[in-house]
Amino acid sequence: MHLLIFLTTVKHMNKPRTAITPTRDENYAEWYQQVIRAADLAEASPVRGCMVIKPWGYSLWENMQRVLDEMFKATGHQNAYFPLFIPLSFLQKEAAHVEGFAKECAVVTHHRLELNAEGKLIPTGELEEPLIIRPTSETIIGDAFSRWVQSYRDLPLLINQWANVVRWEMRTRMFLRTTEFLWQEGHTAHATRAEAVEETMKMLHVYGEFAEQWMAMPVIKGEKTAGERFPGAEQTFCIEAMMQDRKALQAGTSHFLGQNFAKASGIQFLDQHGMHQHAWTTSWGVSTRLIGGMLMTHSDDDGLVLPPRLAPTHVVIIPIFRNDDERARVLEYCHGVANELRQQRFGNRNLDVIVDVRDERGGDKVWHWIKKGVPLRIEVGPRDMEKNSLFVARRDLAHKDKQSIERNTFIATVSTLLQTIQDNLFARANAYRKDNTKQIDSKEDFYRYFTPERDDPNLPSPIHGGFASTHFGGDIELEQKIKNDLSVTVRCIPLEHTEAGTCPFTGKPSKTRVIWAKAY
Amino acid sequence: MHLLIFLTTVKHMNKPRTAITPTRDENYAEWYQQVIRAADLAEASPVRGCMVIKPWGYSLWENMQRVLDEMFKATGHQNAYFPLFIPLSFLQKEAAHVEGFAKECAVVTHHRLELNAEGKLIPTGELEEPLIIRPTSETIIGDAFSRWVQSYRDLPLLINQWANVVRWEMRTRMFLRTTEFLWQEGHTAHATRAEAVEETMKMLHVYGEFAEQWMAMPVIKGEKTAGERFPGAEQTFCIEAMMQDRKALQAGTSHFLGQNFAKASGIQFLDQHGMHQHAWTTSWGVSTRLIGGMLMTHSDDDGLVLPPRLAPTHVVIIPIFRNDDERARVLEYCHGVANELRQQRFGNRNLDVIVDVRDERGGDKVWHWIKKGVPLRIEVGPRDMEKNSLFVARRDLAHKDKQSIERNTFIATVSTLLQTIQDNLFARANAYRKDNTKQIDSKEDFYRYFTPERDDPNLPSPIHGGFASTHFGGDIELEQKIKNDLSVTVRCIPLEHTEAGTCPFTGKPSKTRVIWAKAY
Repeated sequence: MHLLIFLTTVKHMNKPRTAITPTRDENYAEWYQQVIRAADLAEASPVRGCMVIKPWGYSLWENMQRVLDEMFKATGHQNAYFPLFIPLSFLQKEAAHVEGFAKECAVVTHHRLELNAEGKLIPTGELEEPLIIRPTSETIIGDAFSRWVQSYRDLPLLINQWANVVRWEMRTRMFLRTTEFLWQEGHTAHATRAEAVEETMKMLHVYGEFAEQWMAMPVIKGEKTAGERFPGAEQTFCIEAMMQDRKALQAGTSHFLGQNFAKASGIQFLDQHGMHQHAWTTSWGVSTRLIGGMLMTHSDDDGLVLPPRLAPTHVVIIPIFRNDDERARVLEYCHGVANELRQQRFGNRNLDVIVDVRDERGGDKVWHWIKKGVPLRIEVGPRDMEKNSLFVARRDLAHKDKQSIERNTFIATVSTLLQTIQDNLFARANAYRKDNTKQIDSKEDFYRYFTPERDDPNLPSPIHGGFASTHFGGDIELEQKIKNDLSVTVRCIPLEHTEAGTCPFTGKPSKTRVIWAKAY
Repeated sequence: MHLLIFLTTVKHMNKPRTAITPTRDENYAEWYQQVIRAADLAEASPVRGCMVIKPWGYSLWENMQRVLDEMFKATGHQNAYFPLFIPLSFLQKEAAHVEGFAKECAVVTHHRLELNAEGKLIPTGELEEPLIIRPTSETIIGDAFSRWVQSYRDLPLLINQWANVVRWEMRTRMFLRTTEFLWQEGHTAHATRAEAVEETMKMLHVYGEFAEQWMAMPVIKGEKTAGERFPGAEQTFCIEAMMQDRKALQAGTSHFLGQNFAKASGIQFLDQHGMHQHAWTTSWGVSTRLIGGMLMTHSDDDGLVLPPRLAPTHVVIIPIFRNDDERARVLEYCHGVANELRQQRFGNRNLDVIVDVRDERGGDKVWHWIKKGVPLRIEVGPRDMEKNSLFVARRDLAHKDKQSIERNTFIATVSTLLQTIQDNLFARANAYRKDNTKQIDSKEDFYRYFTPERDDPNLPSPIHGGFASTHFGGDIELEQKIKNDLSVTVRCIPLEHTEAGTCPFTGKPSKTRVIWAKAY
């Protein structure tokens, strides 16, 4: 017998059965794909690198959008919509931006199709100037801002756009890196450097609050080093989260653009003294990537685990019966409970409750909802009814860990229970990050930390390493060398500074530790 | 003096001053553009045929989206998201669809940009198969449905998508016809013809209800003739509204696609008897065009008039004061009123109230909000305060028609007042349509009705004609001839049938009257 098959078989004999194959330990990348498939979140499309976001996945995005949109509006921003197309010449306006974004873009060159002699459609009507599908909108929004901003009275200008963008990625992965993705991009213009910096930090904190309070995903807020900065930005800030393979996910960015884009696009205003000034701008964004991050923060070997505050459905009720008479009575009881639960509030909305009346076996229904990550599952049979109780299971605990709870007690306390689950998910992710973050003070320890013990190209890469917290006094070249050696980068210089110290790579003094990790 | 200038001058001497120049009567098409500009709804972009939707305009779309999305979900639909790109070969799958949509499309042919020797960006990385920016998504969604639908248990499949689409239009007009626009497209699949037809009609009625109850825009629900059908549909239904130039606006469509797209995309299922069947599909959509329709239904020569149920802001409060002391007292009073108003509910949300504290003259503020269409304006000076009253103006009445209302009475009855405005706008639009719809029973009357009395190419076309209700027994060729002669088309065969009669063009018997008009 081939060794790999043998090992796998032995493993399977000893481990408990899981709904997802392979498990995280066996093959993390494949586990990720299988969780998406089992929860029916999305699927690959016939268009290279583009995905179809299916209803369960899209409802996660809708829930994220609703909360973020409220946060943006509460901080004074308004939504607007700008063209999908960017004239090629616009991309050339900002030098660093050209380097960073004018590479892998979808380019529209024709505006017409005609049937040729063989009845095949062919592109005709060549455009004088090719159009780029926006990879990000600094240049096209900058053009509008240059018209909207005339006087200091027009500032600050605080705009957000919900949109699709396209970056022609070579290696794609659902939600994490797709050719087309959905996002929001905030774009603001200010009269002073200080105000623009304040805006940049404010939105970073909005992202941090959203990630931690709503996604239950702990993040480190920090600044990017020069090598990881947004092309054209003076400073880039980010929130970085740890996934369960201990890699980092950049979950949101907020850029202080200085006057670079204002100069490139001509965003000028007359100040109080009648002098022409260039505005100071920012931009900030999060995308459908957050769905991948949320998945990888909480899910387990039985599938998706959703933080209750963003779950499309909070509670699923599964009726258990043996005959039509029982069915009628149990269903009535279930719908009664569901209706009362729907009056309860949690987070920013009323509870969403499903009574699963599908014509399937009870066990199949239970696993269906486990894989979809619904926070609370209730099974109700005739005996539960007689006791006026409910058989309740929490998605964040082991699936056999069920509890009988008196009906009215459950209804009265369900929002507390959901918050308990939310808190537990956050605490668990936080503990995982803490357990896998190491202070490192020598180059040797650093290289050892990021080198897997087993490195067989025939096996999936084992989960190893994590976040390393080191002092750093190096430059872009040294960062690049470490990246080449280990595929590890500085994820950020955390806003919360540590003690000063010495860089283990250069021996130079360092003001604060930085966070290193492999990253998505 | 040139006659035209002279006439214009005379006209200006006699008519009351209006905030919008020209007026509807003087030049309707230009009036439309100026209302958009004065309300700051949108502007042209540097990309041909694409517009920038500015915050006030976008908030109208957000309000429409919120209501429609709830209506779609209440009728069992779920949102999902499909790729922006459609492989060229997909467009060729449905023959009629090729004819109708594979014409003016944005075609992506390259996926890379490189700087050439002169430092200019040039497209490289030619795609093996060009990609089309979706003009509509039947083909790409059909491909997904062919995977999602396997058994009769998977039906009905009720999906909606909010998205941007691109149709390379030669003549564009803001909101009404733009190269890129925002819309929703519903796509559903059913096991039987009857169920698909029922869905088609259900969504037509949803659109009708939305137009009339929310936009205060009366619509005729009907079926399109063969010549005006969606390419690939078996039947197309529509809602048609009358604008203030008496032209028709097709405001929403709902298509019964038969099995055409199911056959083209291979959407098949196993029925209860184990037989393979093609599904029956529908699609239905409304777009940002609705904003243009709402504008043209209600606005007047002073600018935008918004139906309260979709207005971003329901009430604006303008403080009037002469000095700092008055300013402080008046502002406190205004904010107090605003906060109480914000507790009131109207339509699907709490009142949105702005206290206009900008450093501008009171008169300028008043006209600013008139042009933006806010339903209720309140002016508050020291004397109003002393009387504990508010000086209230309704946007649907003459701008000088103001009323002093006791503070608490106003707050207690504001939602009733807003509904009165909503109802008044609907009644007014309904009366306008009635006054400009004519039953016509001879060809001569028909041709006269649609021929302007003055037809000087140097003058803007005068407002004339309207809806004509005639019997019709003709075919596509006759429709085409009338279109060539008069630019008039059958807008729809109303669902509500009239008495039977005789076609004035052919003398053939006709079961019901149809509605003719010039159209956007």
